Amino acid sequence: MERGGIEEKLGEKELRQSVDEVSNLALDIGGSLIKIVYFSSNSGSSVDDQVHGSSNGNSNHSVLSGRLHFEKFETRKIDDWIGYLSSKQLRQYGAQCNQAPASDKNIIKATGGGAFKFADLLKEKLGIILDKEDEMDCLVTGANFLLKAVHNEAFTYVDGQKEYVQIDQKDLYPYLLVNIGSGVSMIKVDSDSKFERVSGTSVGGGTFLGLGKLLTKCKSFDDLLELSHQGNNRAIDMLVGDIYGGMDYSKIGLTSTAIASSFGKAISKEKELEDYRPEDMARSLLRMISNNIGQIAYLNALRFGLKRIFFGGFFIRGHAYTMDTISVAVNFWSKGEAKAMFLRHEGFLGALGAFMSYEKNNPADDASHQFVKQFPNSSYCIEDRIQSSDSTNASDNSCIECRLQVAK
Amino acid sequence: MERGGIEEKLGEKELRQSVDEVSNLALDIGGSLIKIVYFSSNSGSSVDDQVHGSSNGNSNHSVLSGRLHFEKFETRKIDDWIGYLSSKQLRQYGAQCNQAPASDKNIIKATGGGAFKFADLLKEKLGIILDKEDEMDCLVTGANFLLKAVHNEAFTYVDGQKEYVQIDQKDLYPYLLVNIGSGVSMIKVDSDSKFERVSGTSVGGGTFLGLGKLLTKCKSFDDLLELSHQGNNRAIDMLVGDIYGGMDYSKIGLTSTAIASSFGKAISKEKELEDYRPEDMARSLLRMISNNIGQIAYLNALRFGLKRIFFGGFFIRGHAYTMDTISVAVNFWSKGEAKAMFLRHEGFLGALGAFMSYEKNNPADDASHQFVKQFPNSSYCIEDRIQSSDSTNASDNSCIECRLQVAK
Repeated sequence: MERGGIEEKLGEKELRQSVDEVSNLALDIGGSLIKIVYFSSNSGSSVDDQVHGSSNGNSNHSVLSGRLHFEKFETRKIDDWIGYLSSKQLRQYGAQCNQAPASDKNIIKATGGGAFKFADLLKEKLGIILDKEDEMDCLVTGANFLLKAVHNEAFTYVDGQKEYVQIDQKDLYPYLLVNIGSGVSMIKVDSDSKFERVSGTSVGGGTFLGLGKLLTKCKSFDDLLELSHQGNNRAIDMLVGDIYGGMDYSKIGLTSTAIASSFGKAISKEKELEDYRPEDMARSLLRMISNNIGQIAYLNALRFGLKRIFFGGFFIRGHAYTMDTISVAVNFWSKGEAKAMFLRHEGFLGALGAFMSYEKNNPADDASHQFVKQFPNSSYCIEDRIQSSDSTNASDNSCIECRLQVAK
Repeated sequence: MERGGIEEKLGEKELRQSVDEVSNLALDIGGSLIKIVYFSSNSGSSVDDQVHGSSNGNSNHSVLSGRLHFEKFETRKIDDWIGYLSSKQLRQYGAQCNQAPASDKNIIKATGGGAFKFADLLKEKLGIILDKEDEMDCLVTGANFLLKAVHNEAFTYVDGQKEYVQIDQKDLYPYLLVNIGSGVSMIKVDSDSKFERVSGTSVGGGTFLGLGKLLTKCKSFDDLLELSHQGNNRAIDMLVGDIYGGMDYSKIGLTSTAIASSFGKAISKEKELEDYRPEDMARSLLRMISNNIGQIAYLNALRFGLKRIFFGGFFIRGHAYTMDTISVAVNFWSKGEAKAMFLRHEGFLGALGAFMSYEKNNPADDASHQFVKQFPNSSYCIEDRIQSSDSTNASDNSCIECRLQVAK
């Protein structure tokens, strides 16, 4: 089952901006995906034209109007991407600072394990030096920035309805950040500068695609999600009612439709892999993984008394059933006391954190905090231009209108 | 890959004792397996010969010497089992009480969802009426009995070494009981009579066999376990080192060999299901599920301040790698503060609990407590005759030498 999915096209996709406009490009190189955040100043205008004055009274800085761009492609296609960049001789993505020496523009901020794995390759092929930022630092910095600065970033998903959550910047902390990439990290965030990775699980997006591919022959993550949309997990999962002869086990709060054993019906000796519908298997798998993450997240939130759980990472992709399952899991296990919240730019936390690190004048300072200070009135300074917020691909190929402060 | 495994033979296995000797037979009918516990008095001796006097001074009771037997077969083969029993006209497995009316001997204590599902079938085909006992009640009663009355029942498994734990009966509670059947129940046990099912997960034994069967075509649980023994999960799992170019991510305590994403390597588009070794997939699956259960169990133990976690259920089967993974998971997530403990009669907690319920004179009393009171000196009264305690099948086809108090 070979289908053309978004991921199929990512390797060939061109950066939208020309070399002169792109700056502060930052990478988050994960096990499956490379996420890119970069800034583009408004085309056709010079730096001077774009100076609106300093928002924090620092006369050594000017402000560029432009956009933050969010893109991704598959890690396994890194050679294609390098080939493309090499052919365009695009080597100056680094620090946007007029006084920065030319050599600094070959230094790109990067995070994720691939920043270590592919450092030599990128240096050799493109002359780009990766300036590595800690992965957890970047995830937290990116999440803090989004939650503080971007209007309508977080939302709940209940009964098929998305509801935006207004975040009071002064009442953001503490919260639990659950980043679902190939694997899952759970981070307790206590303040702008204090956080701890408290848990995680290896059952994440890589498990969904890996197992899903083995079971269904589906080749891309988005195709597998689409497939799951058409499936029915009851064909594969053993429900409480299957064991209890159609009855609930109400004494312990389990209805007959609750899943007793994920993939438990597949123990049947009468059926082989080929006898199950790929869509049903994709659905069971998605539900198993989403439910499991929701449960472990809730248990960690409970452990530390955290009332807010924000879910990010490219596993979710704004997919209704995924968000619904995670929401139901958190609601079920917390007996209605906790709510799952999602982030529209879910997949770019790390890359955004790496991007913010360009702004770190003092490494001891927190980049997110600086950026927010630079744009104290976020509704004015950061205008979110994502129109298709209900699309399942809301966070793909999107951009945020913003202004970037640069050294004069 | 059709292999002859233990489960293959269970359907045809005969009860060892003749009809006259077997009594107090109790069933735990789960989604995949039916577990049976029954008592047999010593063959060739009459009830009177076996009276050793009352151990608790109750002159209305006498004591039978005999054995507790533990057997299991597959739920899907229930028709075979019924056919066998029917042909032997064995209908008197119920209460062992001389004064019990004959009709009571057609009443069998049963627990698990299948006690509801198969009640009509057993009544119709065998004339047996199932007296249903609550599943969680039975699991707890069975565990309490084993932990209090059976010598060397609980053990830890660290670095390949089994170490028996001496349980102080007065210091048993509270503990967390994790029963891993097709699905997983986690029960906080506070006293002889007080407990609560606090958590669970649908990722259990049914998931292992169900997914394992789809991936490897292996047909039985034991064959799949055996297969996993020969595999290497690194062929399928995405390790931290795979993402970080062979490096640890030591800042957050993850070594390069830690699993970042279970089945994460299978996202590769160059390989299909057929390109992976079944034994490697079985190993990854076993590790994913065992690790996940260990993690969720630890989080629940932590939540309620429980220092002891006992793992039971037929998922484990004394399998070294399973116990090792669960032990490592609990050790890792608790940073060495908690230890996983296992039970030799792991799979029979529910059936044993149903068996104990024959002894309940007053439903408000706790059966386990009564049983232990009847045999206050367990090392004398309950002599454990399992010789092959290191065998992976230690709990199969085993029996415990004991004495049963019956009404005169």
